[in-house]
Amino acid sequence: MLADGFSRYSNKIGCLITTYGVGELSALNGIAGAFSENVKVLHIVGVARSVHSRSQDYNNQNLHHLVPRLHDSNFVGPNHKVYLEMIKDRVACSVTYLEDINTACDEVDKVIMDIYRYSKPGYVFVPVDFSDMLVDPSNLFKRPEITLENCVSYAPSPVVDELVRMVLQYIYESKCPSIIGDVLCDRFGASSMVNNLIQLTSMWNFATVMGKSIIDESNVMYMGLYNGNESIETVTERFLQSDLVLHFGIQVHEINNGHYTINYKEDAKVIEFHSEYIRFFDASTGNEKVFKGVNFVQVLERLIQTINVNKLNFEYPSNIEKFATDEVNLPTEPTEITKVTQNYLQKSVPHYLNPGDVLVCETGSFQFAIRDFVLPSQLKYITQGFFLSIGMALPAAFGVGIAMQDYPRCHISKDHPSHVEIPDDYEPRLILIEGDGAAQMTIQELTSMVRFQVPIEIMILNNNGYTIERAIRGPTRSYNDVMSWDWTKLLEAFGDFKKQRTVSAKIETRSKLAMKLKQLKNKGKLNLIELVEIKLDTMDFPKQLQSMVDAAAFTRKCSLE
Amino acid sequence: MLADGFSRYSNKIGCLITTYGVGELSALNGIAGAFSENVKVLHIVGVARSVHSRSQDYNNQNLHHLVPRLHDSNFVGPNHKVYLEMIKDRVACSVTYLEDINTACDEVDKVIMDIYRYSKPGYVFVPVDFSDMLVDPSNLFKRPEITLENCVSYAPSPVVDELVRMVLQYIYESKCPSIIGDVLCDRFGASSMVNNLIQLTSMWNFATVMGKSIIDESNVMYMGLYNGNESIETVTERFLQSDLVLHFGIQVHEINNGHYTINYKEDAKVIEFHSEYIRFFDASTGNEKVFKGVNFVQVLERLIQTINVNKLNFEYPSNIEKFATDEVNLPTEPTEITKVTQNYLQKSVPHYLNPGDVLVCETGSFQFAIRDFVLPSQLKYITQGFFLSIGMALPAAFGVGIAMQDYPRCHISKDHPSHVEIPDDYEPRLILIEGDGAAQMTIQELTSMVRFQVPIEIMILNNNGYTIERAIRGPTRSYNDVMSWDWTKLLEAFGDFKKQRTVSAKIETRSKLAMKLKQLKNKGKLNLIELVEIKLDTMDFPKQLQSMVDAAAFTRKCSLE
Repeated sequence: MLADGFSRYSNKIGCLITTYGVGELSALNGIAGAFSENVKVLHIVGVARSVHSRSQDYNNQNLHHLVPRLHDSNFVGPNHKVYLEMIKDRVACSVTYLEDINTACDEVDKVIMDIYRYSKPGYVFVPVDFSDMLVDPSNLFKRPEITLENCVSYAPSPVVDELVRMVLQYIYESKCPSIIGDVLCDRFGASSMVNNLIQLTSMWNFATVMGKSIIDESNVMYMGLYNGNESIETVTERFLQSDLVLHFGIQVHEINNGHYTINYKEDAKVIEFHSEYIRFFDASTGNEKVFKGVNFVQVLERLIQTINVNKLNFEYPSNIEKFATDEVNLPTEPTEITKVTQNYLQKSVPHYLNPGDVLVCETGSFQFAIRDFVLPSQLKYITQGFFLSIGMALPAAFGVGIAMQDYPRCHISKDHPSHVEIPDDYEPRLILIEGDGAAQMTIQELTSMVRFQVPIEIMILNNNGYTIERAIRGPTRSYNDVMSWDWTKLLEAFGDFKKQRTVSAKIETRSKLAMKLKQLKNKGKLNLIELVEIKLDTMDFPKQLQSMVDAAAFTRKCSLE
Repeated sequence: MLADGFSRYSNKIGCLITTYGVGELSALNGIAGAFSENVKVLHIVGVARSVHSRSQDYNNQNLHHLVPRLHDSNFVGPNHKVYLEMIKDRVACSVTYLEDINTACDEVDKVIMDIYRYSKPGYVFVPVDFSDMLVDPSNLFKRPEITLENCVSYAPSPVVDELVRMVLQYIYESKCPSIIGDVLCDRFGASSMVNNLIQLTSMWNFATVMGKSIIDESNVMYMGLYNGNESIETVTERFLQSDLVLHFGIQVHEINNGHYTINYKEDAKVIEFHSEYIRFFDASTGNEKVFKGVNFVQVLERLIQTINVNKLNFEYPSNIEKFATDEVNLPTEPTEITKVTQNYLQKSVPHYLNPGDVLVCETGSFQFAIRDFVLPSQLKYITQGFFLSIGMALPAAFGVGIAMQDYPRCHISKDHPSHVEIPDDYEPRLILIEGDGAAQMTIQELTSMVRFQVPIEIMILNNNGYTIERAIRGPTRSYNDVMSWDWTKLLEAFGDFKKQRTVSAKIETRSKLAMKLKQLKNKGKLNLIELVEIKLDTMDFPKQLQSMVDAAAFTRKCSLE
């Protein structure tokens, strides 16, 4: 999950190295998450000695870390590829088990190229005796670096030209077009292109759950996050006025599509841009055309080069303005309430974020609140929004922190179309919002943050267990409880004995939280780990979560009928 | 790993329930360990609604926690059985994905019976809509309980009689026979039978790495732990005098067989008793006969009933006595040394154990010391000796603790052949010996112990990281380092705010350790969690580990030649 976070921030390949079996299988849930959410992870697994150097005796021997066969394991040796067979074509886009040192370099390169091409995890199994062998270095000259750009499959130029011509025709004919910036824009390095297109054309634009923060939400045509029936009503109203939807980097699943409730204006045209196809869809007729083997980045690039803004004929409704967070209609709480509520957090956390910061959020109830934030310019938002493995965010945030050291400010561009200035000397903050239940699952990564001195602000939303699960099922069941911890003692126990690298605070009132958030927002370069435990009521969760629970229940009901 | 520990203690089925994908895959390393070491675990996985209640639309929908397909995932729904396909026949002896409520009970029963039959993990995938459905209760009458005894496959009586006749003939002809009590004796509930046979016949007997503590080592004919070239020399000398070896519950792999260096007296006869076969082997001729489809427990039972002790003709060498720990030849350290060393621990820990206690040891350097302990009568020793996944012991010990609450004293028998009295009011202690590096991997289970009030004594051997790995490779590499923790603050942070349920101590000298061990040995029913951090030097490890490292290096070298 660390490698996953590293890649989500840097858009490079995050790499992990494990021992076969024990470490390898422990990492599998993280790999499945990366596979599901198109994250570039290379998993190098150290395995037993190579097949050619094994004696027949050795082949028949059961080795530790390697599961023996179900039958006759005292007579028949183990299957050395048993773990490979588990993951191949299921959670890996490319796999090689090195058996010949002469082809090893090519095989490794192939896996790396596939990881970029699919933006999914790949595996290399390396026999222990290969690690000290010399190889032919010619690949280093042939292919001095492997980049995203030289790995995606390019369609022939005439095909791209024709597609761009078609897309342009749709755009020129449209009165009220919209752009959706979805998850694969990030994974295929096209986020700034999408923002350029928005800047160039002033089209309405929407975020998705998985694509949140890809579109710079500081732009004046930002119309909110659309997620079918689970959207804010006013966002849906806007979206349903779009006569053309340009959906860049589309990924379809129940979370990203509001449990499959995406609707279009009845006569809308929809163009979906994916890494492997472009799809034209006509909502009035239901007709579709799919062009396969085209990566949308190529098309988008050409589109920006070719578009003639003088030919645009948009007639957006004049009464509709940029999406504002008050459209969420959060209740007004009595002023005498001093305790912190999710409602209060939803209102205050956005003000605590600076342009260019990096925000990581754990799977849990607060993820639902962030959907409807208007995020500051060039803030990078990272969350596992689809695979939703509780406990993922803490190690992922550690990986993000390492990537921010290795590739500082790589998510910030000097000539970003938003024109929001991020001063050169501003050090983007890394912020993690994490529930107490989830944090307990992977808490030891806190110690790694101390060890590798990763500056981070961690908000532990302490609501006494798995509130998101309570909202769905079993509100008072003990399986949703966790132990109460003294969160403010953890970092000291985990290695910061003299409290020199970390600050821990427990906060129970709004006034103290406001002070803390303000202080953190303006703290400058302190390079500390700040852990803030925020006490919340057990059954307090954002109203957007209730909409999801209702929508999911409705979908389940419908699928029964 | 909790379920695994539960089963290792109770010999019942340990059960875990997870959600498909996220929880399920996170548990996979634990399952692979249980599979490798014949532990009875039932993994119930909650999955999406059943196939018959799914609409076509639903079938095409990508669901959270479920990896989408590599190709065309926006058009083709996911494979709902993708995780089942991973584990089937690889880390599970039996699997069912419930699809028909009418056959569900039979299918679940079948998995449970297979788990007992193979002593390996099984899986039941339960659709979410099945959990509230009513089923035909007739299985409850047909099969009121499923036990180990009614699940193993019994051979026809004449076959068993003939096998017993053959075995008896070997025994009656032998002058110097030996019994080995190996791991499957425990898993198939035959440990006390083996001890009865020893008591009845006064045969020499040996432990194995995986079978440690199955044989009651208080018996006067206990000759030590034999593990091929990795044994204490004097144990090997004894073993090589055996003209007949009765190896009960055999499991063959590099750890249990000293990297495949088991030797026999040149004219020895060997009989291997396994859950699925009996094998006769003649070391002088190399001839073997394998009888398949026979569970050894049936043969052993009949053997004990049939054996005529008057026909025994043993002539053991009169100069050989019971194995004694001083045969390990531990060095004598200068008396002025006050710090704790592995050498000191090896000498003192055995005295701290009481008959009937339960000792759990983590994968790590101290595992190697315990091999040559002479354990007190009816002490149950639990360790993951073959799969060797670091971090397994802490959750496993928690599972053991729960099992000790559910089945108190189930490892102790009133009429145990050892005749060592364990008073009725003695509450067996649960002791965990754990390295600091391993403990950091699964440290959050400490909080579960506080939550469920599992009394336990935890010795944290703090040697600044992965000493066992340093011994094998990279003694000073940073990947073998871990953060220094303040171990004595953990339990307080993890929920025992007022230090009412736990006691934590940091120990750096021998005198303090001696006092602590004595106090714990005699503490009576305090029902506390006692955490004792013991400081050790980074490169200090038991001499037996060096033998293993040397032996493994030698085997690797040989397999190359």
